[in-house]
Amino acid sequence: MTMPKGPQAFPRTEYLRRLNTVKSEMARREIEVLVVTAPANITYLSGYTSKSGYVPQGLVVSLDDEEPTFITRRMDGPAAIHQMFINRSHVIGYPETLIANPNRDGYDAIIDFILDKGRTRGIGLEAKLLPASTVEKFKYRSMKAKIVDFTHVVAWIRGVKSDLEIGLMREAAAISDAGMLRAREVIRPGMREADLAAEIIGTLVRGADGKPGTDVASFFLCSTPRTSTCHIRWTEDVFQLGSQINLEFSGVRHGYTSPLMRTMSIGSPSDQITRLHEGEVAGLEAALAAATTGRTCSDVAAAFNSTLKKCGFEKESRCGYAVGIDWTEPTASLKEGDITILKPNMTFHLMLGNWIDEDVGYVISETFRVTDVGGEPFTKLPRELFEV
Amino acid sequence: MTMPKGPQAFPRTEYLRRLNTVKSEMARREIEVLVVTAPANITYLSGYTSKSGYVPQGLVVSLDDEEPTFITRRMDGPAAIHQMFINRSHVIGYPETLIANPNRDGYDAIIDFILDKGRTRGIGLEAKLLPASTVEKFKYRSMKAKIVDFTHVVAWIRGVKSDLEIGLMREAAAISDAGMLRAREVIRPGMREADLAAEIIGTLVRGADGKPGTDVASFFLCSTPRTSTCHIRWTEDVFQLGSQINLEFSGVRHGYTSPLMRTMSIGSPSDQITRLHEGEVAGLEAALAAATTGRTCSDVAAAFNSTLKKCGFEKESRCGYAVGIDWTEPTASLKEGDITILKPNMTFHLMLGNWIDEDVGYVISETFRVTDVGGEPFTKLPRELFEV
Repeated sequence: MTMPKGPQAFPRTEYLRRLNTVKSEMARREIEVLVVTAPANITYLSGYTSKSGYVPQGLVVSLDDEEPTFITRRMDGPAAIHQMFINRSHVIGYPETLIANPNRDGYDAIIDFILDKGRTRGIGLEAKLLPASTVEKFKYRSMKAKIVDFTHVVAWIRGVKSDLEIGLMREAAAISDAGMLRAREVIRPGMREADLAAEIIGTLVRGADGKPGTDVASFFLCSTPRTSTCHIRWTEDVFQLGSQINLEFSGVRHGYTSPLMRTMSIGSPSDQITRLHEGEVAGLEAALAAATTGRTCSDVAAAFNSTLKKCGFEKESRCGYAVGIDWTEPTASLKEGDITILKPNMTFHLMLGNWIDEDVGYVISETFRVTDVGGEPFTKLPRELFEV
Repeated sequence: MTMPKGPQAFPRTEYLRRLNTVKSEMARREIEVLVVTAPANITYLSGYTSKSGYVPQGLVVSLDDEEPTFITRRMDGPAAIHQMFINRSHVIGYPETLIANPNRDGYDAIIDFILDKGRTRGIGLEAKLLPASTVEKFKYRSMKAKIVDFTHVVAWIRGVKSDLEIGLMREAAAISDAGMLRAREVIRPGMREADLAAEIIGTLVRGADGKPGTDVASFFLCSTPRTSTCHIRWTEDVFQLGSQINLEFSGVRHGYTSPLMRTMSIGSPSDQITRLHEGEVAGLEAALAAATTGRTCSDVAAAFNSTLKKCGFEKESRCGYAVGIDWTEPTASLKEGDITILKPNMTFHLMLGNWIDEDVGYVISETFRVTDVGGEPFTKLPRELFEV
């Protein structure tokens, strides 16, 4: 029996459209063949979400092939055949002898493939994401080729979503909402942090509206006395009356995320946190109003920062970043000075976590898309500091 | 209020012992200051498990300082003060201006720190894990220093566990066992794969024996018709009578993992899978018997391979790898030809997943420690092909 093709997250035409945009950029940069290695970019151009990226793999895009070719460890070939939109003949497994081998690795298989095809003019690499030794290997082994850095080019192309992608991000957002509502429902004094985490993560996996989560993304639960931290999973502590719980997580649909942050309090929050919450919500609304087509990331950040300042607070870190497959996109930031121009269906995580000194932290965030009339958030949750 | 120190996974003496081993290697390689960037190595040398490694950070070990210094994004400083064994004065936060800045990043803050201290002789870097541009930056900015590659040196030191570490891996194994038992309990025809994943992951987070899981590690659920795949999370499918479910996951305790694989079948498995199971269990037992102090990784793999071959099967991929913090250690492999000599308390994931062509896959694995009388597995599960 051969591996059947699985259900596809997008139609073939969607992938070919994405590839054509990439190929235009390749042609403009005089690249004949592009080796895509960033896992989120591979997902974007093929539908592959299997987690084999801890060993070398590459999606090879050629100007003269409609479909890309995926070169991966042989044991991961069947998953690629199952998940990717491409023909099975475009999945090439390299042998196990290239694993844990100090002399040759999977990148040699990719170079062999390129050299066999006689493609030795411009080769595009996501060079800044690769180990130096790998880039050297490409240069050395394909001596006649010009190596062109393509780092983050596909990520910038990913920045503007199609309506189909927006649909998946809305599904992910519904799952994020379900997780947050579950938290509000079950938090109580005496509960272990880990038990809350289990309830939320279980909800994120079960999904919402009949659509399961398809992965577990990053997850942070930073509670008293750790509310000034932002990237702790959870601890072995037990909640008490007066505990504050800062939550950040995301549902996932076929790689697409829609992160969400909310702050919860067992009993009344302090006056300081209440005032900070009010300032942050005012800032969030100002930021969304500013996120219209044609304005800049800097404008959105300035709208947030000036509003928050009027309320007597400041936020040191950026107000957010482009978001999509596997969460953060390494491109535009919602910060003053980032003059990226907003286009319809760009999506951002308006991340307003505010950690002040060592003892104060408050979080709220929404994932939104840019429209002509402002940022349209995907969450349906109220902008409350949830008192439970 | 200042951030309090959290409960520590290990006593200070344990971290100092580890650091002394690292410092001996530094001295031997004429390195005055070492920049540790691999997250698992940072955890090993400090207790830090917060997930801030998606931006530059470095644990700087100096021969003339008892404690290392951690240089991290300012917002992550409080988590470092809370989790690391080091004095708070050894946590240095760099400002937000170094985030999403094309000209200067957190590595510049690390270089500034080293240059300020006047340490400009040998600088050790985990160079093969860093982007080429970062290594270039270190070379360029600290011109007088000799840059020495320290890639995987700390990982090799991590290879031999202390009894305290073995204790945490046993706790992680008890959680892995609980997850597998939960799977056996709830799998039934008509169940969605995602609902099974939610049940298992919820169990992995709640933990076992009163000790919660402290993170969610990688997780794979590859079921019919995808049993020949190995790295798919789960799908939207529903189990049916006759479905086979291959599971791989791990409990986590303060970073330490103890991965486990088992195969489950709804109804009777095929004759082929039953015979493969029998061969694999025989091979597993032969491998554990061979894993005695003084023998080699190659010996363990050969014992497995020859036993499996007698049963009429072969396995293409390696039989396992060193395991510990954050799962795989990038060092020893259980494969023929790897002549790493086994020492007491080395720990391996004896990973016997066997994916044959596109339609057959069977998984079983155990995490074990090396002893003088053979590999001692941490799991207490029977070596069964679970029929549910």
